[in-house]
Amino acid sequence: MKKRIGPKPMVFPMPAVLVGTYSEDRTPNAMTAAWAAACCLQPPCLGVAINRSRLTFDNIQRIGAFTINVPRTNQAAAVDFLGMVSGKKNPGKLADAGMETTAGSKVDAPIITSCPVNVECKLAGSLALGSHMWFAGEVMEIQVDEQYLLEDGKVDVDLLDPLLYITSLSEYRGIRGRVADAYSVGKKLMRD
Amino acid sequence: MKKRIGPKPMVFPMPAVLVGTYSEDRTPNAMTAAWAAACCLQPPCLGVAINRSRLTFDNIQRIGAFTINVPRTNQAAAVDFLGMVSGKKNPGKLADAGMETTAGSKVDAPIITSCPVNVECKLAGSLALGSHMWFAGEVMEIQVDEQYLLEDGKVDVDLLDPLLYITSLSEYRGIRGRVADAYSVGKKLMRD
Repeated sequence: MKKRIGPKPMVFPMPAVLVGTYSEDRTPNAMTAAWAAACCLQPPCLGVAINRSRLTFDNIQRIGAFTINVPRTNQAAAVDFLGMVSGKKNPGKLADAGMETTAGSKVDAPIITSCPVNVECKLAGSLALGSHMWFAGEVMEIQVDEQYLLEDGKVDVDLLDPLLYITSLSEYRGIRGRVADAYSVGKKLMRD
Repeated sequence: MKKRIGPKPMVFPMPAVLVGTYSEDRTPNAMTAAWAAACCLQPPCLGVAINRSRLTFDNIQRIGAFTINVPRTNQAAAVDFLGMVSGKKNPGKLADAGMETTAGSKVDAPIITSCPVNVECKLAGSLALGSHMWFAGEVMEIQVDEQYLLEDGKVDVDLLDPLLYITSLSEYRGIRGRVADAYSVGKKLMRD
């Protein structure tokens, strides 16, 4: 039996990421976002939904660049802190969170070097929806801590242990081991 | 040490979902998508990136409605199958996958009743990016299997056991237990 629970924005687990931008005085800023996704293959793009009240909203609109930084589960406290504290009130929030930054290699936005994966994005388009704007950025470069790279250049997600967020429960989670291989487990349902 | 791995679209775990639409002859269709996210709070919206070559792309453009259906890890084979087989070639793919559907309650799109969570979306905006279009849909209703609802109306994600997808490894995953509480674990980093 299905029960109707009414409209809500969030119904499935999402990655918890940090969005890096430069503020007007060139201070590196970061905010926590869970509403992010890949949104194009060619060119490769990531998108993220940002509330209009955020400093990050102003920064992306002004500069046209941002970074998506992927934290590990052991960085949950810093991620949570960066989501609760605004860079408008505390420009030193990144230092307070123990997070180090450096300039992006391809875009005018800071990467958070303390995170194991840093994605440099150039604003490719935006979609106004109401309280939030969907910012789509073309991926210009990705930097990964060498210790999490496999020999074939893929990322070892188990070692990386990326943080997930469950909006409906306000809980951070992690991923667990392999359930099945894609483009494989479904073949048994194919007709000859 | 960071290593640059070049532009790619996907760097973090994403939910694996099924996008439900009606085809031109009113056949219910579904495709697997991992590039989906909440993208607005007010009004509540979900977005999903769809390749222009997909039947789902045509269906959303024509009707202006779609559903997002959240599968469990034990439905990985059906999810994988629905991602490999096009409704253009096999209009009976949902039946072949053992998935049942019914009409949405608020929008002109089918919900996949075999999935524990069904979100009914009315197209609110779209953003053309290249190979893919980002379709943002306002959430008009959510239906959840009663057995996964907690007494406070929240979803028990551990019981639900939603499916995740790791694009870089082509692997399906699940979520694991609580890492930390949001709006809580970060408080210890706040200054008085």
